[in-house]
Amino acid sequence: MAGRTTDGRATAREELVFVALGGLGEIGMNAYLYGLGAPDRRQWLMVDLGITFPGPNEPGVDVVLPDLKFIEDEASSLAGIVLTHAHEDHIGAVIDLWPRLKAPIYATPFTAGMLRSKLAEGPRIKPQINEVKLGGRFKVGSFDVELVTMAHSIPEPSALAIRTPHGTVFHTGDWKLDQTPLIGDPTDEAKIQALGAEGVAALVCDSTNAFRDGRSPSEVDVASSLAKIIERAKRRVAITTFASNVARLRAVADAAKATNRRLVVAGRAMHRIIQVAMDTGYLPETFSYLDQREFSRLEPRDVLVLCTGSQGEPRAALARVAEDEHPDVQLGQGDLVIFSSRTIPGNEKAVARVQNNLALLGCDVVTDGDALVHVTGHPRREELKLMYGWLKPRVAIPMHGEARHLREHARIARAAGVPEVHALTDGQMVRLAPAPSMVIDEAPVGRQFRDGRLIVADGDGPVRQRRKLSAVGVVAVALVLTRKGEIAGDPVVAIDGVPEETDDGYAMEDLVLDAVDGTLRSTPSARRRDPNVLREAVRRSVRAAVEQVWGKKPIAKVLITVLDGRG
Amino acid sequence: MAGRTTDGRATAREELVFVALGGLGEIGMNAYLYGLGAPDRRQWLMVDLGITFPGPNEPGVDVVLPDLKFIEDEASSLAGIVLTHAHEDHIGAVIDLWPRLKAPIYATPFTAGMLRSKLAEGPRIKPQINEVKLGGRFKVGSFDVELVTMAHSIPEPSALAIRTPHGTVFHTGDWKLDQTPLIGDPTDEAKIQALGAEGVAALVCDSTNAFRDGRSPSEVDVASSLAKIIERAKRRVAITTFASNVARLRAVADAAKATNRRLVVAGRAMHRIIQVAMDTGYLPETFSYLDQREFSRLEPRDVLVLCTGSQGEPRAALARVAEDEHPDVQLGQGDLVIFSSRTIPGNEKAVARVQNNLALLGCDVVTDGDALVHVTGHPRREELKLMYGWLKPRVAIPMHGEARHLREHARIARAAGVPEVHALTDGQMVRLAPAPSMVIDEAPVGRQFRDGRLIVADGDGPVRQRRKLSAVGVVAVALVLTRKGEIAGDPVVAIDGVPEETDDGYAMEDLVLDAVDGTLRSTPSARRRDPNVLREAVRRSVRAAVEQVWGKKPIAKVLITVLDGRG
Repeated sequence: MAGRTTDGRATAREELVFVALGGLGEIGMNAYLYGLGAPDRRQWLMVDLGITFPGPNEPGVDVVLPDLKFIEDEASSLAGIVLTHAHEDHIGAVIDLWPRLKAPIYATPFTAGMLRSKLAEGPRIKPQINEVKLGGRFKVGSFDVELVTMAHSIPEPSALAIRTPHGTVFHTGDWKLDQTPLIGDPTDEAKIQALGAEGVAALVCDSTNAFRDGRSPSEVDVASSLAKIIERAKRRVAITTFASNVARLRAVADAAKATNRRLVVAGRAMHRIIQVAMDTGYLPETFSYLDQREFSRLEPRDVLVLCTGSQGEPRAALARVAEDEHPDVQLGQGDLVIFSSRTIPGNEKAVARVQNNLALLGCDVVTDGDALVHVTGHPRREELKLMYGWLKPRVAIPMHGEARHLREHARIARAAGVPEVHALTDGQMVRLAPAPSMVIDEAPVGRQFRDGRLIVADGDGPVRQRRKLSAVGVVAVALVLTRKGEIAGDPVVAIDGVPEETDDGYAMEDLVLDAVDGTLRSTPSARRRDPNVLREAVRRSVRAAVEQVWGKKPIAKVLITVLDGRG
Repeated sequence: MAGRTTDGRATAREELVFVALGGLGEIGMNAYLYGLGAPDRRQWLMVDLGITFPGPNEPGVDVVLPDLKFIEDEASSLAGIVLTHAHEDHIGAVIDLWPRLKAPIYATPFTAGMLRSKLAEGPRIKPQINEVKLGGRFKVGSFDVELVTMAHSIPEPSALAIRTPHGTVFHTGDWKLDQTPLIGDPTDEAKIQALGAEGVAALVCDSTNAFRDGRSPSEVDVASSLAKIIERAKRRVAITTFASNVARLRAVADAAKATNRRLVVAGRAMHRIIQVAMDTGYLPETFSYLDQREFSRLEPRDVLVLCTGSQGEPRAALARVAEDEHPDVQLGQGDLVIFSSRTIPGNEKAVARVQNNLALLGCDVVTDGDALVHVTGHPRREELKLMYGWLKPRVAIPMHGEARHLREHARIARAAGVPEVHALTDGQMVRLAPAPSMVIDEAPVGRQFRDGRLIVADGDGPVRQRRKLSAVGVVAVALVLTRKGEIAGDPVVAIDGVPEETDDGYAMEDLVLDAVDGTLRSTPSARRRDPNVLREAVRRSVRAAVEQVWGKKPIAKVLITVLDGRG
């Protein structure tokens, strides 16, 4: 389908195209493609391959993955996958989907380290990971890729300057401007400005904070605010943050030292990141902390405990501390808990639950609503304006955001004087060059799910069935027939997720059996001989009978055994 | 259990007690009780009887109701139920639970009208509703109740001054201070101050905004801000708000008139409230608007459409408009949508979905984050301080809030000089008088669910089963045995919510059948003769076999038919 333009032109034309398989219209699940060449023989470069988390309509799902059908069909022309940074929404799908692509991966040392650390925990896949240095320049097929160091909430965020015969694309990844990011290099504004002078055809840019005015504070401001809050605390202090925010971990460790507290770390994810950060030089090799088992022997005034669980995850350290069920860490009256994080939309209730449990223990809670204890890793409006001013692209493609963010970002880009601005949705393929840019095709896109150990499709699959089960429950009916259609043995019923009694105390199972008996009696034996006809008749009558008393029709499964050798 | 104090005193003692069956520790589901008399023969007064909405762990549930076991056991000593205002979290459980209490209800005309309007739609129950006038004083059993007009986001919010031989309790309900509430009377500050002069033993008070500094703006400020925004709009304007906010409906209608737009109303809930508000004089009898069917014939510049759906409810008018699936109302490029509301925690994703769909249609969206288009109906910190200053109670009981709100409110009450402050949880019974106040008992509390047409228990009931089904799906297996334990006919399997194939393409049903066959072969026929033993063996092997390939154990139902007459 990529071999033909929507206007049906069959003549091959050399061009540079862009399409998102995820990341336009929903936060997370980033997966972008650049294509180079004539429509019928393009070479592809993938940027990022992330997951997102399931919503309430996707029960039982572990993670949501982009549907890569489009690129799987031409995996042989995929030159490589470049990862901009190590957040799950940018690399999380590699573990499940790389085997379908098998293209070489390019990543900086920290990102590669995080990926390897994840791969070590999962099924055994061995992607080729090419470690590239910060700010490095390398070829991926015909794409000439140069990394540009940005700032974000994880080490080594790298924008990509992708040079092609049709011009340069600047793909920002997640970014902000920060000259004092606490760890790693500051945003390489000089290189961005030089790229602008060289000329940029298209800017594909983070939209997350398109609604927020001004500039984001620096990581260093958060560190000093945290230190002051911890300084004032009289008893135990617990702090939770995104584990991958190594600068924040460093700020917390520094604050512990400055306030003469011992740093205790609770939660597996924290340990893993600290290890990768030490391996890659973002935390000193002398970085030291106490295991959570040491917590109980420390005086309240002497402890600063860093916990996983800033999103209210029920099995993470902080949730268990808040429920007073953590094996090692206990908090109580007058202790302080700092949420050095923001609540990701959808997690509000889970986070509130943890905070309420902490309140019941007598803890004081400080969040980013109360003090500067967290800072965004994404550009606010003034930062976006600076970027447009530096790069002066001909084309702007807002990415990383829901539809309303992309729309607002498009408005900012137009106001900054960009002549060609496209607020796209996933799957819309746009020709970036030659000018003028325009939507030329539509790639198939969608979601799939990691469901236990299997990858399952969206649509009419098990996830949708479970959503239905969660609303109406299930009734199973077993019937035994002879070949002649005679009933052998009594019908058997099992229910699950359906109330056991009607409101006048009649057992639901009996009600179902009555419905089955009624249907069997009213179905002529000639028709009973066809199990499909009988199955459907019983299914309907059971659902109708339950609906009568419950107001809802359960899923009904009718299992018919036809006995052999008696017909 | 109410007949004995925790310290075991058996001597009857006249006292005034308070206990919440809902409303302390979670937003919504308000249900409070005051008890008067000796522990073994108390007379009770109930204040409010509300619902809350189910969370993601309560799939398929329509509404969450308080468990009233405690008061159902002594319903004969329940003198009455006073409703403070007509919001669902204060009156929504009457329709389901009143039949278990059968006590007379007391409410002001608008609240009574809303209740009757709801009752007319549901099952036929006919509670005795005593209409009391605003600011009225009446006896409910031994309780001398006086209404005090407050301000809130619905007409006729009434606090209760409950006079008893042990002193007066001031129970605020939901409230704020507003001298220009746009409809109805302003907050009756003079009466509150007079009650303070008379002396108040206990203040039981709204905690919703305990974390918010300052005072809340007036409804009149919102009206003028809305009018200005609508004035500037060049094309269609749609506005959504809580239907029950009659003052807001009035403000919208006034803005329509002032900007020469025709008011169109879309959504059933809006029509119902407008009718009750007209019946009770809160909207003029001449209040006029166009039905949604008129929308299409109006010029874009001439229309202001008021829609239900501010919380992203998928079936409400605005969600359908945003999906471009509304039969009458269509919006497009350059139209403006105002969310004159706040997003209730838990609804963030649903609201964002609607806003994203509107962005895709090309609409501009204004929310309470962008402009003064909504105002809270609850007291901020300065309002709480004024209330404590006016009433100077001996005892403060923070209510209406999650644990962290109650804790923060308790801090404010202590700072205001209240000597006895209790941040309670549902079920903790506190003696308010005689002094000193203290927790003396624990009432059983909990949740129950309206599930379709039935009321079902929390705990090990159908809702919990459905939660499990939503995670792991179900496998049903039918087996037929002779009395001797011989297998008759082939086993039959049905699956739902479980992936259909393993990752090497093997059908899950075949995998289950293999497991069943293996179990049947390995179970000696003597043991097969006991269906319970066989059922359990098959159940285990099926779950284990599926787990092996899927990583999750489904619910397994094994239905065994034992054939008659062949043993």
